Amino acid sequence: MPIRALVWNENVHERTNETVAKQYPDGIHGAVASALAESEGVEVSTATLQEPEQGLSEERLAGTDVLFWWGHAHHGDVTDETTERVMRHVWSGMGFVALHSAHFSKPFKGLMGTPCNLSWREAGEKERIWTVAPSHPLAEGLPPFFELEPEEMYGEPFGIPEPEETVFVSWFEGGEVFRSGATWRRGGRVVYFRPGHETYPSYHDANVRQVLRNAARYAAGRRVTTAAESDAAPNVPASEAPEPFEARGPRLHKDGEAGFR
Amino acid sequence: MPIRALVWNENVHERTNETVAKQYPDGIHGAVASALAESEGVEVSTATLQEPEQGLSEERLAGTDVLFWWGHAHHGDVTDETTERVMRHVWSGMGFVALHSAHFSKPFKGLMGTPCNLSWREAGEKERIWTVAPSHPLAEGLPPFFELEPEEMYGEPFGIPEPEETVFVSWFEGGEVFRSGATWRRGGRVVYFRPGHETYPSYHDANVRQVLRNAARYAAGRRVTTAAESDAAPNVPASEAPEPFEARGPRLHKDGEAGFR
Amino acid sequence: MPIRALVWNENVHERTNETVAKQYPDGIHGAVASALAESEGVEVSTATLQEPEQGLSEERLAGTDVLFWWGHAHHGDVTDETTERVMRHVWSGMGFVALHSAHFSKPFKGLMGTPCNLSWREAGEKERIWTVAPSHPLAEGLPPFFELEPEEMYGEPFGIPEPEETVFVSWFEGGEVFRSGATWRRGGRVVYFRPGHETYPSYHDANVRQVLRNAARYAAGRRVTTAAESDAAPNVPASEAPEPFEARGPRLHKDGEAGFR
Amino acid sequence: MPIRALVWNENVHERTNETVAKQYPDGIHGAVASALAESEGVEVSTATLQEPEQGLSEERLAGTDVLFWWGHAHHGDVTDETTERVMRHVWSGMGFVALHSAHFSKPFKGLMGTPCNLSWREAGEKERIWTVAPSHPLAEGLPPFFELEPEEMYGEPFGIPEPEETVFVSWFEGGEVFRSGATWRRGGRVVYFRPGHETYPSYHDANVRQVLRNAARYAAGRRVTTAAESDAAPNVPASEAPEPFEARGPRLHKDGEAGFR
Repeated sequence: MPIRALVWNENVHERTNETVAKQYPDGIHGAVASALAESEGVEVSTATLQEPEQGLSEERLAGTDVLFWWGHAHHGDVTDETTERVMRHVWSGMGFVALHSAHFSKPFKGLMGTPCNLSWREAGEKERIWTVAPSHPLAEGLPPFFELEPEEMYGEPFGIPEPEETVFVSWFEGGEVFRSGATWRRGGRVVYFRPGHETYPSYHDANVRQVLRNAARYAAGRRVTTAAESDAAPNVPASEAPEPFEARGPRLHKDGEAGFR
Repeated sequence: MPIRALVWNENVHERTNETVAKQYPDGIHGAVASALAESEGVEVSTATLQEPEQGLSEERLAGTDVLFWWGHAHHGDVTDETTERVMRHVWSGMGFVALHSAHFSKPFKGLMGTPCNLSWREAGEKERIWTVAPSHPLAEGLPPFFELEPEEMYGEPFGIPEPEETVFVSWFEGGEVFRSGATWRRGGRVVYFRPGHETYPSYHDANVRQVLRNAARYAAGRRVTTAAESDAAPNVPASEAPEPFEARGPRLHKDGEAGFR
Repeated sequence: MPIRALVWNENVHERTNETVAKQYPDGIHGAVASALAESEGVEVSTATLQEPEQGLSEERLAGTDVLFWWGHAHHGDVTDETTERVMRHVWSGMGFVALHSAHFSKPFKGLMGTPCNLSWREAGEKERIWTVAPSHPLAEGLPPFFELEPEEMYGEPFGIPEPEETVFVSWFEGGEVFRSGATWRRGGRVVYFRPGHETYPSYHDANVRQVLRNAARYAAGRRVTTAAESDAAPNVPASEAPEPFEARGPRLHKDGEAGFR
Repeated sequence: MPIRALVWNENVHERTNETVAKQYPDGIHGAVASALAESEGVEVSTATLQEPEQGLSEERLAGTDVLFWWGHAHHGDVTDETTERVMRHVWSGMGFVALHSAHFSKPFKGLMGTPCNLSWREAGEKERIWTVAPSHPLAEGLPPFFELEPEEMYGEPFGIPEPEETVFVSWFEGGEVFRSGATWRRGGRVVYFRPGHETYPSYHDANVRQVLRNAARYAAGRRVTTAAESDAAPNVPASEAPEPFEARGPRLHKDGEAGFR
């Protein structure tokens, strides 16, 4: 079965800033999608902030194995309802790949439980991305390091939970370092990948595009529950316990009653 | 310097349910605080939902090294504002210990980024808590296992991120298992410890009380930033980069301008 | 490309103990291999302790994507040379799946860096294996829990490093718990899966066989280096540094000289 | 109770190389010990390769809460017996802090289960060490980054297991990055801290010395077993199971019999 990848983009600077429009005439979502489309076995579609339900209806998400996310200036326009819908799908098994400034997107911050802050500088400097976990699927087909220039600097400390695996670390011309590729599980797999400032051509870089394809395969997940049921907390009556035993003691709840939330 | 521990409790069932009132005449917060007070070098105070700002003002939190949390039926009465205040203090270094039904508390869910759901059964059964990481500070002074009876059953899957360290795993008479002691870092240390259903005497148990004291010492943290500044994202101008270099390329931002959120 | 799985077995009790011989007329390796062979896209072969180089020549390993390992009474007959050869292939990207009593095998202990000890009891009791990470690839297609009876008990503390992900936890009739499915990366993926005492029919169980197939797909890895080069420590002369700079200061080594080991 | 720190050093270059002798007239062990001695509540002693049992007798180790290790050119002179003795003490709870070229020491490689290899360059360049986990105890009292010049370059990929927590990441003048501070648990805590090439004055640097003191407090551990018993695998007879049940089924072993290793 093919992997169903959905690339979401706020899609604002591409329409309002000439530099960005020239870099990404098909939008950043278009550039990311075109990288994924070069993979066999990946079906790609795109969605943007301007669509109804911000392009992320229950139906769209239910048909998605891995969601890529790019946003920057309009994080706040993604509603709490949409954010929770996305999070529930990740909880139920969908993969989520946060790109560049999506570190401050509402779903990524919600999934991390941390501020996801960092220091930054927009000065067109050189970034050298080192693979620190060469055998990790995210690093497949990459050289020991690759360079992007110009890129925006993101500097440590990056306000994330300790990654399950740190895969890439960046060296910046201006003297900083950054954990540029990292993974977590929140039901589904979550990946953060750093490059991609909108005024620079990073999503046309061959190595960046290879990482995007790797991320689609790595993070794509099967559903283990419906999104609606992703936080179910079933009350298992004593009579249905795997081992028979005699219930006893004082109780607040009746059999099968829903718990407090 | 002593560790400043604050024990927060919603403090409702103790005042409205006769069974709970008898188990915990000083409130669950009182029982937890009395365990911590047996430690040298720990200063304990308590706070409850009924106090102004739910007992968790900026000032209270700023003077706290580790916050214990018990809640069950009134999670929703903790405001979003208070929840964010607590989370910011954890991000800036304060420890947080979630007890029992606090798995569904707003700060714990927010810090985890996952639903924190589980299956459950209130049937007074036997729980046997095994230490799987004997050299972990949370396990100091404990036997290989200890038993609680009666206790409520919490069953896997527990909807949490993979713990940094899983310290305790429970065996239940009815046939389930549960990761009953687990740790994460979210700036400050976060600990989850399972026992403590309000109709049962678990917080009077010597081993449970030992874990509470261990958790105070283990999770207490120093502040590395103010809570207000816990999500700062400083724009570092090229002229202040650690390494001198020539800024270049197209830009969206001016030096020192705040980034988008 | 198909996954090339190699199933290694010490293959002694099957030939010397009548009970085991009846349970596994084709050897435990035969039973494990037959489970893997039910997967599309997996090519399976087997090797045993009795073969030259214990069945694990450089050539065999170089053609293996994931190695399954079962051993019990003859761990010590695997030479240090073979153990190091296996470890180097894991370091260079090959997957390794340790089954049951392979917790004490030389390659698994070497890869973990810990004693890998546990408590145990051979009393034919009931084991109930719970999935604690339902969306993990190891758990694909499994029910919330499954039971094996009779099985040997393995009890905590299990002397392993904190797993990257704990996937299965067992409940035992006699009152113990155990982390029965766990993963690590050591270059290639390492998986431990608990069931499989040789006097019991566990490798004929449908759920166990499903986990074996899942493990083959999950742990199979590509090589990122040769096994011989898996511990290379290249001396990078200043003249070949990614950034040009002036070498300076006192030195112990000449350019390109090998470092100390 | 004070923390008992033991600083071990191979102590060869200090005696055979004039540059090193000038940098460290009291030996590298002397410099490290003098940093630790500035901490209240830490009792420091030293041991060197030249002493009987390489300075690491059972008695020495039994009286040690945390062992610091510096070696470079004479890793091979540490016997397998001493290596196993050290590892057993870590397994039973002692902390272990590997400094600089100790990445290739026998106890560190044994505890990691990986090659612990890296790329390197001895060219006196600038190293800038960033704290990526500011609230971690290893980072207490440090600025956001500090610089060492001259230092040796160590470059990724560093052949280690994914750290439990990555605390420091280095930026090198020549263009590389390195995970310079990382932690694991192997029973006791294990810490790796990168700086300290013997021809350079890094162990006289105030920030490096602060990290050494932090590491002593962070890694010092209590014993949970004797070193001899650190890999015990007790056979628990059915009659002594926590839950009474009827033993059944075919058996290889008698009650209380030792298992195979």
